[in-house]
Order: sequence, then C-alpha cells, then structure tokens
Amino acid sequence: MKTDAPAELEALRERIDAIDERIVRLLADRRKVVEDVVALKKARNMAVYHPAREEDLISRRRQQARASGLDPDFVEELYRAILRGSRVCQTRTMALKGLRPGAVALMVGGRGAMGRYFARCFSEAGYVARVLDRDDWPNVAKLCRGVDLAIIGVPIDQTAAVAQALGPHLPETAVLADITSIKARPLAAMMAAHPGPVLGLHPLFGPTPSSLDKQIIAATPGRHPDACAWVLDQFAAWGAVIVTASAEEHDTVMDIVQALRHFATFAFGSFLAGRRVDLARTLEFSSPIYRLELGMVGRLFAQDPGLYREIIFASPERRELLRDYARAMSENLSMVETGDKARFQAEFEKVAEWFGPFSDQAMRESTYIIDKLIERF
Amino acid sequence: MKTDAPAELEALRERIDAIDERIVRLLADRRKVVEDVVALKKARNMAVYHPAREEDLISRRRQQARASGLDPDFVEELYRAILRGSRVCQTRTMALKGLRPGAVALMVGGRGAMGRYFARCFSEAGYVARVLDRDDWPNVAKLCRGVDLAIIGVPIDQTAAVAQALGPHLPETAVLADITSIKARPLAAMMAAHPGPVLGLHPLFGPTPSSLDKQIIAATPGRHPDACAWVLDQFAAWGAVIVTASAEEHDTVMDIVQALRHFATFAFGSFLAGRRVDLARTLEFSSPIYRLELGMVGRLFAQDPGLYREIIFASPERRELLRDYARAMSENLSMVETGDKARFQAEFEKVAEWFGPFSDQAMRESTYIIDKLIERF
Repeated sequence: MKTDAPAELEALRERIDAIDERIVRLLADRRKVVEDVVALKKARNMAVYHPAREEDLISRRRQQARASGLDPDFVEELYRAILRGSRVCQTRTMALKGLRPGAVALMVGGRGAMGRYFARCFSEAGYVARVLDRDDWPNVAKLCRGVDLAIIGVPIDQTAAVAQALGPHLPETAVLADITSIKARPLAAMMAAHPGPVLGLHPLFGPTPSSLDKQIIAATPGRHPDACAWVLDQFAAWGAVIVTASAEEHDTVMDIVQALRHFATFAFGSFLAGRRVDLARTLEFSSPIYRLELGMVGRLFAQDPGLYREIIFASPERRELLRDYARAMSENLSMVETGDKARFQAEFEKVAEWFGPFSDQAMRESTYIIDKLIERF
Repeated sequence: MKTDAPAELEALRERIDAIDERIVRLLADRRKVVEDVVALKKARNMAVYHPAREEDLISRRRQQARASGLDPDFVEELYRAILRGSRVCQTRTMALKGLRPGAVALMVGGRGAMGRYFARCFSEAGYVARVLDRDDWPNVAKLCRGVDLAIIGVPIDQTAAVAQALGPHLPETAVLADITSIKARPLAAMMAAHPGPVLGLHPLFGPTPSSLDKQIIAATPGRHPDACAWVLDQFAAWGAVIVTASAEEHDTVMDIVQALRHFATFAFGSFLAGRRVDLARTLEFSSPIYRLELGMVGRLFAQDPGLYREIIFASPERRELLRDYARAMSENLSMVETGDKARFQAEFEKVAEWFGPFSDQAMRESTYIIDKLIERF
C-alpha cells in the first residue's frame, strides 16, 4: 500500500471530513432539542421512553435511507445508537430527582437481591429507604412508622404470610405493594391485610440492570389507584415501561411467558443431561443460533432452582397447562413415529400462518442477534 | 402516561425530525464520496482499510464532540458504526478472493437458495460458476464438461438419486461434494456414484450471511482428501471455520443440534398456536429473553417447512431419539402433577451440575446478548 495518498484521494477525504463536521454539528443541535424535551417531560411527569414514537422515527429514517440508496439496516443501527444516547441523557437527568424525595420506602425482604436493588434505586433518588428482613421482625412497628410505600419481595410461597404479618403495622395511607411473579393470590392477601392503597408489581427483570431504562414492570392495581399512582410514575420516571393488567390476566400471561417456557427449557436440559450429550462437541459444530439456544438452557440451570420451582409449581392452572403441553408433545411424536410427513407439513403450515407477521419480525430480530454473536464470540 | 403529547412537545419533535432528515441526507452524500474513494483505490490496487486514517478521523470527531458538549464516546461509537458500514461496502466490492480462479464449479440444485448463494461466492471470486437444476438434466453432459468441483445442494431425500445421476458425467478428477444436513447416506451414495475425490459438506448457516466470515462448515471426508483440500482451503480463505468429523459422528451430533432442537421448537410453537395464545399481549409483558426465545420459535416457522420436515424425519435413529424425548417429558410432567417439589429441585441440581461451567459461560454470553437486545428493540 502506498504511504502517501495521491492528491485526488486527499480531495475526496477533505469532502468526507466536511460532511462529518456537519453531521456532528447536527448531532449537537439534536441533543439540545432533546434536552428541551426532557425539561418538558420532567415538568409534566411524563415517561422518557415512548416506543411508538421511536419506531415511527426509525421507520421514517429507513424509508429515507432506501430512497437515497443507503442500506436501511445500517441507518437503523445508527439511529438505535442515537436514540439510546439521548435516552441515557434523559434518564440520567430525570433519575437525579425522586418524585417524592424524603418519602419513606420500606423494602420487606430487603436483603434479597431484588430488595437490595430497589432499596438502592429509592435511596439514590432521595427517598428514605428502609429494610425489613427475616431478622428485623422484632422491630417491625418501628420500621413501619411513617412509611409511605412498603414493597414485599420474598419467595412466592411466603408472600401471603408476610403481607398478613406486615399489614397491621402500616400507616393506613401507606401504599402496600409486592414484587412476586404471580399476582392473584398475593394481591388478595395484601388487600385482606391492609385497608389502604394496594398495588401488585412484577418486575420482569433480575437484580442486574444498570438502569431501569426500558425494563418492564407489570402492574396489577389493587385498591385506591390514585393513591398508588406516584409509585408507578416514579418507576416510569426511571425509564421503566409499566404494563397494566388485572391480576388474573397477568397470571394467565405468565403461565405461558414463565411457567411453560421454563418447564420446556428444564425438560430439554434434563434430557441432554440424561443422555450425557457431549456438549463441547456439539458446540464445535454449532451455528450461532444453536449456541444461543443452548445458552438459554444453560442460563436457566445457572440460576436459583427455588425460583424456577416456585414459578413452575405456583398454581393448579399452571400444572394443568403443563399437562396439556406434555400431551401435545405425544401427539406430535405420533406423527414422527408413523413417518407422517404430510401431517407434519400441514401442521407446520398451520402454525406458520398463525404466527403470521411475527415470524418475519422474529427472523429479522434474531438475525441481528446472531450477527452480534458472531462479532463477539 | 399521557396518550397525546402537548403541542409544545410536538413542535420539538418536528425540529428533531428535520435535523434527522438532514443527518441521513449527509450520510447518503458521504456514502457517494466513499464510493469514489473505493473506485480510486481499486484502480490503484490500494488497501481498503487504512487504520491510521480512521483513528485520525475519529479523534477529530471526538474533539468536535467535546467542544460542542456531546459525549465523545457516544460520537466515537457512531463513527465506528459509520466506518464499519463503509468498510463493509468497500470489502464487498473488493475482497472475495479465489484460490483457483478460472476453475469450474458446478452447483447442482443451483437455483435453490443455498445453491444461488454458493454460485455467487464462486463466481465473485473468479471461478466459472455453472448451475444444474431440475430442468437442466438434458444438458448434463455439457454442463459437467471440464468441471473441477460439483456441489449437490438438493433436498435430503433426493441427494442419493441426484448423485447417482450425476456421477457418470463428471471428469474423474472432479471433486464431488454435497451440502446435505445429514452425511452418512449422501456420502455413501456419492462414493458409489463417482470414483474420484468425494467430500461431504454441511454449512451450518442459511443462505443469508453477508460474508462467510466465522461461519461453520462441517466436513466429512470421503475419498482422496488431498485432492479435496483446495475446496476446504477456499472456504477457509473466505473466512469459514471448517470442522472435520466422520459422517457417522456428524450425524449423531446433528441428531441433537438439529433434529431434537427443531422438534422441540416445533412442538412449542404448535402448542402456542393450538391454544391461540395472544402473542402480542405476552410480548407486552416480556422480558427481552422471552422475546428472544419466542423469536427463535417464530424464526423456525418463517422458514421452509420442507427443510425442517426432512431434518426431523431423516433417519430411524432420529425418530427414536424424539420418542425418548417425549417420554422424558412425561416423566417430568409426573413430578409436576404430583406436586413433587423436592424431586424437581433434586433433578434441577443434578442437571445444573452436569452443565457445569457451561452454565456460567451461558449466563455471561446471554447477558451480553440481552443487553444488545435491550439496546436495539
């Protein structure tokens, strides 16, 4: 390669530099307008993250890219980074201030991983964060004094008992909430234990994310939603996305999203272990997508068995769902055993039709992820 | 959160849109200048990648960012993506390297997706790429004349017949290869049909990647490995990773990596469809990992049913494996039905121990991927 570029190349590079200089200037202009948006949202207590607006923005940039001969995926990648950048800036400014600094938040089970996580969120936002764990029950009356919000974060099978024990000590105006992964029974127990505002919460993430940005929290209203609103507003101000449902709907959705999925993953891993499959050798032959799928299985077994046990065994409805699943599996097997390719094909097509446009989206998303995996590992 | 944004917010958003429109216009201008640079470099045989120029460019953009109150890391991230984008566009035009330019490669089943993909690879690298598809058999003798490599890429159940029909027309020195996803029977059929060099191949990717970089190809040697070596060298030169095994070992590994996994995914999707689960609603409540796992299911159903049908029904061993799997599922179910939490816990711990260090690695890798997902979607 030549070390000094010819004059012609130099001229082209200067044109690129001039364009780049304008791009960065526009990014700075953009950031200023975003700051105005933040100020406005802050004044009105609005959520930072607005998925529909982002998707709309991205799809218009993709159109423009296509029309001007650019790869739309490339432009989308850039804009995802730009939007992430401005979201980080927005959340950072907004997280500084709690919506009710000085209010008292009590984490019950506060020495568990999720309890510690939330205690830190509240404390950093200027709340008084207290912790009530197993050993603190002798001081329960004192710990509950002046509490504005109590959040129960204990294993599923203990939520009801803890609510019962806690209720009598809470001020009547305090919001009683929980973060259990099922909602109907815990919510009923909290309603019975506390005559004031009650709110069921289910954070759909573990105690690890660096910010609540885009993290999902399911909310199942119990009593006095107006008195509970500030709690949801606070999570939204930290960047979380609040999805509201009745406790029953929540549990039905989680039968699928958690119980069925975890059971299927558990069964797959257990089968591999039972056959002593040579994992390392299968990984040598593996497409990134197999590595990723096997990783999902391995991930489950790297975590707390008790958590999955309680999710899978949580209710009779769940156990019934899993029975139906195992039955459907035998149905599918009979197709394979009789070598009935035509039936397989027909069933496949039926399911594909049912998945509909989600399949294409899934294809795009997972292709993106696979590319990331290839880049990284 | 409020559903309609106040007029003030709308005005700010319009300003952002106007800025974005100018940014993308500048990106398109930039791409055009980059194309001129590529043309110039090509004419002068200069390397595409010029690290010093890139670092210099980045450091000037960082300076500008700092001066205008932007986070320099953020701007650097964007520019790394922009530079990667223009490098991809440059390498695509310049870099498919042929080890035996002028040699003749025949793609049998060349109008299928994988056939077209490989035909393009060979042709862009300076090979003479020919295609023999369903309708070309009357010209088979002419198409086989002077062929150095013939690659069979047809459905599993047709590989043997195609090899048989093709063999007599090939020059004895030609390498006969296939890209079927099982290897024992196709390899035997090729060995019987052609007395010259024979090589089984199984590319572990679909016809979509933008380059072969880091993609895995399983190779099962048949006859005259020395005479086949250039084919593997060629794929390696394009960036592919070659994993060698006997046809039997390959098939045993693929029983798990493909048949079992696809069957389990198929059964999961079929169950969701049968229950008419409200996918959109479950996605609203979804952690990124659920979205990813459901995406894996959707991805399967976005693809060719015939491909999966042939993989799942490929051999009696596979069908037996799937029977064992369905049986193990019923075993697991009995645990749930009897509410035997202790047995679940014990089985979980046994499997976790068997997964061993892979679990931790899986946890790390999938956490990385989940972060990427949160950034992106």
